[in-house]
Order: sequence, then C-alpha cells, then structure tokens
Amino acid sequence: MPGKDEPFARAALIGIGLIGSSLARALRRHGLAREIVCSAPTAATRAKAMELGIVDRAFADNAEAVLGADLVVLCTPVGAYAEVAAGIAGSLTPGAIVTDVGSVKQAVVRDVGPHIPEGVHLVPGHPVAGTEHSGPEAGFAELFVGRWCILTPPAGTSPEAVERVAALWRALGSNVEVMDAGHHDKVLAITSHLPHLIAYTIVGTATDLEAATQSEVIKFSAGGFRDFTRIAASDPVMWRDVFLNNREAVLEMIQRFTEDLTALQRAIRWGEGEKLQDLFTRTRAIRRSIIEAKQA
Amino acid sequence: MPGKDEPFARAALIGIGLIGSSLARALRRHGLAREIVCSAPTAATRAKAMELGIVDRAFADNAEAVLGADLVVLCTPVGAYAEVAAGIAGSLTPGAIVTDVGSVKQAVVRDVGPHIPEGVHLVPGHPVAGTEHSGPEAGFAELFVGRWCILTPPAGTSPEAVERVAALWRALGSNVEVMDAGHHDKVLAITSHLPHLIAYTIVGTATDLEAATQSEVIKFSAGGFRDFTRIAASDPVMWRDVFLNNREAVLEMIQRFTEDLTALQRAIRWGEGEKLQDLFTRTRAIRRSIIEAKQA
Repeated sequence: MPGKDEPFARAALIGIGLIGSSLARALRRHGLAREIVCSAPTAATRAKAMELGIVDRAFADNAEAVLGADLVVLCTPVGAYAEVAAGIAGSLTPGAIVTDVGSVKQAVVRDVGPHIPEGVHLVPGHPVAGTEHSGPEAGFAELFVGRWCILTPPAGTSPEAVERVAALWRALGSNVEVMDAGHHDKVLAITSHLPHLIAYTIVGTATDLEAATQSEVIKFSAGGFRDFTRIAASDPVMWRDVFLNNREAVLEMIQRFTEDLTALQRAIRWGEGEKLQDLFTRTRAIRRSIIEAKQA
Repeated sequence: MPGKDEPFARAALIGIGLIGSSLARALRRHGLAREIVCSAPTAATRAKAMELGIVDRAFADNAEAVLGADLVVLCTPVGAYAEVAAGIAGSLTPGAIVTDVGSVKQAVVRDVGPHIPEGVHLVPGHPVAGTEHSGPEAGFAELFVGRWCILTPPAGTSPEAVERVAALWRALGSNVEVMDAGHHDKVLAITSHLPHLIAYTIVGTATDLEAATQSEVIKFSAGGFRDFTRIAASDPVMWRDVFLNNREAVLEMIQRFTEDLTALQRAIRWGEGEKLQDLFTRTRAIRRSIIEAKQA
C-alpha cells in the first residue's frame, strides 16, 4: 500500500451532493488525489459537477466510476448503500479503499461489508459536519475544517488502510477518532439524529396549528423557532435513511427525551419553578463547554 | 401627550440585562430619550451599566428610577413584575407610559395592570429578539433591527400612547404588530417557548446519558446538537418565569408536540419511510419562507 501521505491516484465519489462535492473540492485543493471522478444518477447533477469544475469526469454508472480507483467514497443516502455496493463489487481494484460519509455506521458494515471483495479495504467514516443545503453547488472545501471525522473500521481491517483514511481527513483539516460502529450510532443518536427528529417534529407541529397562522409563525420565528427550521431544512431522503438505519438507538433516545419532557411538563403544570431553573442552569454550562471545545 | 416623534424626557429602564441594555444603547443612538436611567438590584450591575456609559444614572430603588420618567420600561424577568409594579405605582408621573419587554403578555395585564394609576398608560410590549447571552455587557443597539415588536394594549388603552410606543420601536428598526395578549401568548408558545423548552430538555437528556461521555457529546455536537445548546444557554430565571406565566398555552403545545413525536416514533419503529420523508419535505418549505421573510 502507498504511504499514508501519498496522494490517491483516483478518487471515485459515488454521489456528489453537499458532502460529496465538499470532499471533491477539498481533495483537489489539498492535492490528495491526482484524478477525481464521480457518479450521479441524473444528467443534470453530472453536468453541474463538471460545470463547477470539481471533478475530472462524471459517470452515470457507479461501476464505471470506480474502475481503476484506489479510493472509493460512498456519498449517497445510506439507504442506497446495499444496492450501490452490489453494483460496484465486481469493478473494485485490488488494494482499493472503500469508505463512506454516512451518518450511521452499523448499517454500513451490514449493507456494504458482504459485497467487498478480498483484498479491498472497507473503512467506514463519518465526517460530523454539514449544512442544511443540498446538492453539488452547496458544497465548499472548508466544510470539514476543525470538525471531527469518526472512523469505524470492522475488526480485522488493515491498520494501514485505516491510517490512510485518517491521514486523508486530517489533511482536510479534521480531527479523527476511531470507534466501534455501535458506539458511534449511540453517540450520534443523541448529538445529531434526535436533534434533527425533534426539529422536524416541532416545525411540523407549528405548521399544523389552527391558533396561529403560518405567516405569524414565520414572522415571529426569531424567538427560537427559526433555529429549528434551519435544521429541519436538511435533506429529506438522507434523514429518512438515517432514522430507518439507526432505529434502535434513535427509539431509545426518543424514549429518554420524552420522559424528560414529561417531567418538565409536570413541573410547569404544578408551578415547580426551582426544578425548571435547576435544569436551565445546568444546560447553560454545557454550552460553555462546547464553546471551549471550539465546536460552537 | 407629546407627538409620537418627540423624544421622551426621561426613560427609566427597570432592569438592565441583555434586553434592557440593548434598549438603552438603541434609545441613545437614535436620540429617543433625553435622559436614560436604570435600576438594578446589585451594585455590580449598576456599576457596569455606568461604566458602559449606556445610562445617565443607575438606581438601586425602582421607585427612585421612575420619578419624573415619562417612559418606564420593565426589563426584569416577568416573575418580578407584580412586585416591581407595586413598588413603583406611587412614583409614576401622570401621563407617563409604562411598557415592558417580557415574552409573555397576559401576565403583564394581570400583574402590572392593577397597580397602574389613573392617567398612566400601560402598553405591554414584546420585542421578538434576543441572544443566549445575559447581562448589561451582552446588549447591543442593533438587536431590534429587522425584528418584530408585538404590542398588546388592553382594551381602552389610549391610542396615542400605543402609537408613541409603536413609533419608538419603529425608530429602533423594528416592525410593529398589535394584537390581543391571549393570541400573543399562543403564537409565542409555539415560536419561542416550546423551542426553548425542548432545547433545554434535549441538552439535559444528553447530559444524563451513560452510553456517551460528556466529552463525546461535546465533541460531536456539530451534528445538530450544538444549535440546541445555544438556545439552552438562555437566561434560566427569565425562562423559568416564561413557562410559569404562560402555563396553559405551553402545556397545550407540549401536548401537540408529543403527539407528533409519538407518530414519528411509530413510523421509525415500523419502517414507514414515506411518512418521514413527507414531513421532512414539508418542513423544508417552511425554512424557505422564513428566509424570504428575512427572519433567518
């Protein structure tokens, strides 16, 4: 295997949305791949990727895109992984590294793992970064700077392959952490999946109200609601797939959240101001820690 | 009563936290009051307000602060209003306008109304603006620019008094809307109070997890959680008072939210991807409306 700081000969990005296109831009800027290609199902997306100049070639067929690639990155919604993996399996080059950018990780081992041929390395990854915008034009090379990228290599993965992927993300400005896929899915269920689900929920609740007109909800959204709408504007298909593919951990977090909300509901009903103030004081401290950790 | 565009002779701000101090700065910048005084219970806060140069005088006693003031603005947490109103009642100048900046409005009529002497005008107000920071040093004059200020004058309030307060907020850069206090409390329960309660809840839920360490929750907060921590860093006493003083509307919104979350929980459990995607697509459109309304 080439050294961890040598550029890849050809990086193939399967899917070229917000994350894929940000990765393409960042790989190019840092000289991490001599050739960058992508695949995308629609002609308009391929044309856009070429027009933006972020890839050298754009293919309709995933299998064609991975031919000769020593780095393959799955950048589609995770619900498509099994089909994508089955489609590219026969075209992967021995020694190639297959990684991904999905927000759930046990599903990658489950859906992609069985299709990876002997001699090809699967190193699942998750850059914890994003915006509410979608599509190739939404990407930018700095998206990963200062953010964490989590790698969840299955037991027995080549340490050199893991190190090459880690070195890649570090070169893009990210911090890298390696952990078990199951643990990843639990931690992200609370730090990412539940927040998104709740944001989607409350925006739906507000939209359905008879007591307030839609235009009032929008006008007075600066009181807190608008922050939720930003998160609730994230890609619908991507997030549908996240919830369906991290079902157990998300259901567990909803349950805990609901218990805690019910306790607050009761405190409000019974006028227990101290309970409210105690929690609100405690949560303020967490914010300070996030600012200190430079993740604000 | 002086014309609506004439400056006030003396504005007295009761409380000089984020909103009070922003108002002091904005009144000064736009020449809307010839003298600006404040009251604050702690010597440190009074010293800070003087040091910042945002008030001409700072009093320990609310009644002293309102002496001779033709504009009195309550800027304390709403739970303190009844006591504040009782304390200043005897010192209010005939013809003066008493307003406030609280996030609930029926409670103002209930707690402040009975103390307002004949000839003094009560015009409750709510600038829908804020940040997660607190204290006089957190304020800034531009806080209200482009935001909405809602006025909820009780039936029978002098239209001239309402117009003077409306003109004041417009001069600070705000849009003004007049509505019934009960309607205000319902609309804000969904656009502001519930979002804050939910943010406080989820940050509490995350902090209590055994499965993830605190440091992991903080590290990987860029996945969505961090936006909630910002809101959950808002002033604990102010928010305690909001929930205790808008109990019915908040409880109603919690109930609706919980029903909607339970429906999504069920969709996730049963793998009903279409239901999820439908909602997520609908919520995305709301975000676009907020951006178009320039409230993003």
